[in-house]
Amino acid sequence: MAKVGILMGSDSDLPIMKKAAEMLEQFGIDYEMTVISAHRMPEIFVDYAKKAEERGIDVIIAGAGGAAHLPGMCAALYKLPVIGVPIHTKSLGGVDSLYSIVQMPSGIPVATVAINGAANAAILAAEMLSIGDKELRTKVKDYCAGLKEAVVKKAEKLDALGYEEYIKQM
Amino acid sequence: MAKVGILMGSDSDLPIMKKAAEMLEQFGIDYEMTVISAHRMPEIFVDYAKKAEERGIDVIIAGAGGAAHLPGMCAALYKLPVIGVPIHTKSLGGVDSLYSIVQMPSGIPVATVAINGAANAAILAAEMLSIGDKELRTKVKDYCAGLKEAVVKKAEKLDALGYEEYIKQM
Amino acid sequence: MAKVGILMGSDSDLPIMKKAAEMLEQFGIDYEMTVISAHRMPEIFVDYAKKAEERGIDVIIAGAGGAAHLPGMCAALYKLPVIGVPIHTKSLGGVDSLYSIVQMPSGIPVATVAINGAANAAILAAEMLSIGDKELRTKVKDYCAGLKEAVVKKAEKLDALGYEEYIKQM
Amino acid sequence: MAKVGILMGSDSDLPIMKKAAEMLEQFGIDYEMTVISAHRMPEIFVDYAKKAEERGIDVIIAGAGGAAHLPGMCAALYKLPVIGVPIHTKSLGGVDSLYSIVQMPSGIPVATVAINGAANAAILAAEMLSIGDKELRTKVKDYCAGLKEAVVKKAEKLDALGYEEYIKQM
Amino acid sequence: MAKVGILMGSDSDLPIMKKAAEMLEQFGIDYEMTVISAHRMPEIFVDYAKKAEERGIDVIIAGAGGAAHLPGMCAALYKLPVIGVPIHTKSLGGVDSLYSIVQMPSGIPVATVAINGAANAAILAAEMLSIGDKELRTKVKDYCAGLKEAVVKKAEKLDALGYEEYIKQM
Amino acid sequence: MAKVGILMGSDSDLPIMKKAAEMLEQFGIDYEMTVISAHRMPEIFVDYAKKAEERGIDVIIAGAGGAAHLPGMCAALYKLPVIGVPIHTKSLGGVDSLYSIVQMPSGIPVATVAINGAANAAILAAEMLSIGDKELRTKVKDYCAGLKEAVVKKAEKLDALGYEEYIKQM
Amino acid sequence: MAKVGILMGSDSDLPIMKKAAEMLEQFGIDYEMTVISAHRMPEIFVDYAKKAEERGIDVIIAGAGGAAHLPGMCAALYKLPVIGVPIHTKSLGGVDSLYSIVQMPSGIPVATVAINGAANAAILAAEMLSIGDKELRTKVKDYCAGLKEAVVKKAEKLDALGYEEYIKQM
Amino acid sequence: MAKVGILMGSDSDLPIMKKAAEMLEQFGIDYEMTVISAHRMPEIFVDYAKKAEERGIDVIIAGAGGAAHLPGMCAALYKLPVIGVPIHTKSLGGVDSLYSIVQMPSGIPVATVAINGAANAAILAAEMLSIGDKELRTKVKDYCAGLKEAVVKKAEKLDALGYEEYIKQM
Repeated sequence: MAKVGILMGSDSDLPIMKKAAEMLEQFGIDYEMTVISAHRMPEIFVDYAKKAEERGIDVIIAGAGGAAHLPGMCAALYKLPVIGVPIHTKSLGGVDSLYSIVQMPSGIPVATVAINGAANAAILAAEMLSIGDKELRTKVKDYCAGLKEAVVKKAEKLDALGYEEYIKQM
Repeated sequence: MAKVGILMGSDSDLPIMKKAAEMLEQFGIDYEMTVISAHRMPEIFVDYAKKAEERGIDVIIAGAGGAAHLPGMCAALYKLPVIGVPIHTKSLGGVDSLYSIVQMPSGIPVATVAINGAANAAILAAEMLSIGDKELRTKVKDYCAGLKEAVVKKAEKLDALGYEEYIKQM
Repeated sequence: MAKVGILMGSDSDLPIMKKAAEMLEQFGIDYEMTVISAHRMPEIFVDYAKKAEERGIDVIIAGAGGAAHLPGMCAALYKLPVIGVPIHTKSLGGVDSLYSIVQMPSGIPVATVAINGAANAAILAAEMLSIGDKELRTKVKDYCAGLKEAVVKKAEKLDALGYEEYIKQM
Repeated sequence: MAKVGILMGSDSDLPIMKKAAEMLEQFGIDYEMTVISAHRMPEIFVDYAKKAEERGIDVIIAGAGGAAHLPGMCAALYKLPVIGVPIHTKSLGGVDSLYSIVQMPSGIPVATVAINGAANAAILAAEMLSIGDKELRTKVKDYCAGLKEAVVKKAEKLDALGYEEYIKQM
Repeated sequence: MAKVGILMGSDSDLPIMKKAAEMLEQFGIDYEMTVISAHRMPEIFVDYAKKAEERGIDVIIAGAGGAAHLPGMCAALYKLPVIGVPIHTKSLGGVDSLYSIVQMPSGIPVATVAINGAANAAILAAEMLSIGDKELRTKVKDYCAGLKEAVVKKAEKLDALGYEEYIKQM
Repeated sequence: MAKVGILMGSDSDLPIMKKAAEMLEQFGIDYEMTVISAHRMPEIFVDYAKKAEERGIDVIIAGAGGAAHLPGMCAALYKLPVIGVPIHTKSLGGVDSLYSIVQMPSGIPVATVAINGAANAAILAAEMLSIGDKELRTKVKDYCAGLKEAVVKKAEKLDALGYEEYIKQM
Repeated sequence: MAKVGILMGSDSDLPIMKKAAEMLEQFGIDYEMTVISAHRMPEIFVDYAKKAEERGIDVIIAGAGGAAHLPGMCAALYKLPVIGVPIHTKSLGGVDSLYSIVQMPSGIPVATVAINGAANAAILAAEMLSIGDKELRTKVKDYCAGLKEAVVKKAEKLDALGYEEYIKQM
Repeated sequence: MAKVGILMGSDSDLPIMKKAAEMLEQFGIDYEMTVISAHRMPEIFVDYAKKAEERGIDVIIAGAGGAAHLPGMCAALYKLPVIGVPIHTKSLGGVDSLYSIVQMPSGIPVATVAINGAANAAILAAEMLSIGDKELRTKVKDYCAGLKEAVVKKAEKLDALGYEEYIKQM
């Protein structure tokens, strides 16, 4: 049964939002992913958001761009954590998406991550779920240990090769 | 019967949004005004937006600040014109409100006016209604003629007094 | 007889502004479209704006970029609704266009849509005209139903294919 | 035993950050609150962040302004959720704080809330903890029901009094 | 006969724009000053701008705020130099005014000065007029020599008093 | 003898700044053009700026990008009009250049044009010179008449071809 | 003999820039402080900057606001470190000052600190001088130890008093 | 023995940060360069920063992008000068990096250079080291003399070729 719902306002967000799916898979967390628009199909959206908790969804990750209302409207209807992913936009670089998601009024928080930060949204969801799941904590820590190791290896490689050779191999 | 619905997400917006009411009164246009939050009372909001047309509302004016979703969510549910008023915010000056209102995705427009531009929202509503109402057109033109006259009088006064005296009397 | 006038300050805006024309065609609304510059041919522009109402134009859609004065100057001379489309600019992404169009002084509103939002400008015009035209209301609602259906189909396709296959087919 | 740690980089942030404490008290969630600077006392900070999990802290809420590194550095050292509160700044309005907190690199998320959004940070912490605590879910929902009721009452009051009288009583 | 026309879109700009008048007086340059709105009285404005040259106006200084079209519309109609003064605005600090004035399209320049820079607008007008007026060149240089002397005196005073005493006397 | 000096801080600005040269040629105005850096060769720069007037230079056009000090430092040393051209920059789009040029302190104006607006800088220089040169006024007006004619032709072409065919021919 | 020169473009910057002086006094570093304007007295400025090194000045701290050219022009003429302090401005909050100081072209760096960060400029100067002065290193470390101690005491006080009492005593 | 440590948060910054290395080589200054992440390997980072002084590192140059904490956290742990290089970012152009680096709180300065200004970071490091190294001063001055000469040659070439030919050869 899916524990995390990944939503996006448009399928054009999929190449970014799939990184959330991939990361959840890496942690072995069940998820569902769909395209749902608060603007284009408000009734379906409201229905989804209101029933998500009883269907067992513990966290919603919602990505949207421009006047990005999807995460905030989720947070109005669903009272477990909502993570918002501001999608990069051509004209404003995603500042419009970021402001529309992060500047929520008192009472209705959205946990906002970086512009296009879908992978981080999934890690954050894993951290939330790991509050009550020690095994998952270990997975998150192992993942972070892997990140550290990767940088250490890069540092060693840079030391061994010198920057000119390193850049050639990039 | 009200033709224009004035909505605001919080009563703290009332000192700005009342200018819309005053302007509509000046044009003799029936309106209703209420505080309604898409975030704090989404079901009531959805119900309002979906029934507004059948209740005879021809235009909705919605003011909101920060992650300002009220105008856009109205536009998702109500298929007559929605005018959005971005409210000034302390930290970002209302740029957050403006981006959250104006950058709507294709298919769901919001007619956005200036930050704190509630009076202009009402004039715009009057212009929309005047498409089918010649008498109202005359009222709008008379109003604009009044604006012109006011500036002409100021210009004459400045000419007569000189700037030093004029400023003293400001 | 044209009911909507689509104006643009430069023919370089045509690839964006044509989306307004296409959308109006879809709704069966008569329009005219021309290139007219408030800066380069002010007399012709003033003449156009002042005579538009008596020629039967009910709404003007004006697109402009940079120091975008065309929509606001229309609104100074023409007392039916003016919809402004801020055009994306290379250096400032269209923030210059947006501010020049939306921040109008009290008395002279411009109904501003998103940067490059010409299609939404046309939908907004249709909504305005539909206040007095029930048939057009139906067309707008049908259009929105189509938008909803398109997203629903995408959601079904994503569900059926999975995200990897879906992205391959994009 | 404290489940939530509230941190702030400077005691000048206390008038904002105390709202997080007040909200947690309202939900009956144990917390600890301290002033700790990643810049001025890095060793003490590192020690705090590394030991927080074993001391039973399930969520950290960190507020900081300007080049706001406290939340992100917490997230580097502590692998349960970190919520960042960007503090308003005089010159840049808190955009500096917001960017320094939200734009974290892949692997190290910070759940960012609005500028000065300390109350929302606490609600978000409560939502996270409520994943495994049904009683707390009820409290969060009750709190939101209270928000809704408050707006409904304001709407009724506005309806009863009219806007002029309402504003006088503000 | 006036050589410089000082225009402003609203008499609320007068406390800033009067600095242009004062500076022109200091240089002994004849000027006229009026309130004229391109938006509220477009015909009067067009008439003014088109006749300014034949009335002997050699430079126009135009101040405006928000969607500041006055300087650019002057430049469309009047083919001698137009100097634009962006007026500070409450919500956007005058960035809206600045972008609306400076980002003019090719063919229609406006010589833009700093936000609220009315005194500099007058100095710039004097420099333009001094191309053909050696006496005025001397006045401009004398003015600048005075500026220099004032700073030199401040430096000497700071040296003599020390910063603590200097600040007390500020 | 050159009447206008075109300066740029780096030869990478030449593809933009050459438009000023081309425009001055079109007006038959003598100019000189050079690369001169206030930062890299301050003595040569100071010498240039101080001697420009006596060499007969009536207007300086200075283009620079980033921390763009060239126009302002010209204005400190040369007391005839200085026109500043902010050059587009990769990271900040030229906002850094614009602010560095336009926000000059009281006493030292720079006539700032749009980002990359080198052609407009030359037109502005021509307008300044035309204060004392009726023949040049005619040339400027003829140029503007040409601009108008070009737009009129485009409008006619769009009317004749329709937008689809017009876009194909772009 | 002064080792650090503190410069400011205007005596209005003194209430900020004096913090640099106070901090240098605390470290026992000789300094001189003066008001000097690159724009209003360019020759005096050039003379100062060119002779500073031979007079024994090892670091220059330069504060300026708006189109802030003073630090960058120092860096063009003086080849020891120049530290720039962007001064807060009313309209743009100091973003103009920051961009004008930090975005220097390749070859001419300015070590930029935070908006209004004059105290940090002095600490940075002390760190630079401490490269060759072990005693000064100790003073800088002692100063930082004092900062740490101050925060620790605040944390203890907050722990002892609770936040309500602590805020009352602020 | 290395006198300058060049750090970067990610090897993707290497194509920018290598310019610092090249410049230090040009000045004959020993350096070390490594990839080290304050977020991904905080313990290793803390260890590096705390031991750098005793290993003889006199200046640290740290480049980072987004929520760029590396330079500021260095400055918290290492009490000799830290130079920060904000790296360009896709969505925000590096404004996020810049604010995260430059807006440091009082007591912990970072000497910030331009976005992507790694070469300038190295020149600034050389200037700092040259306070106690007359020979290095000469090298810095020679380098600047070379910059000047290069511009002079470009100016001569532009003068000889004319701009059309010059641009062809670019």
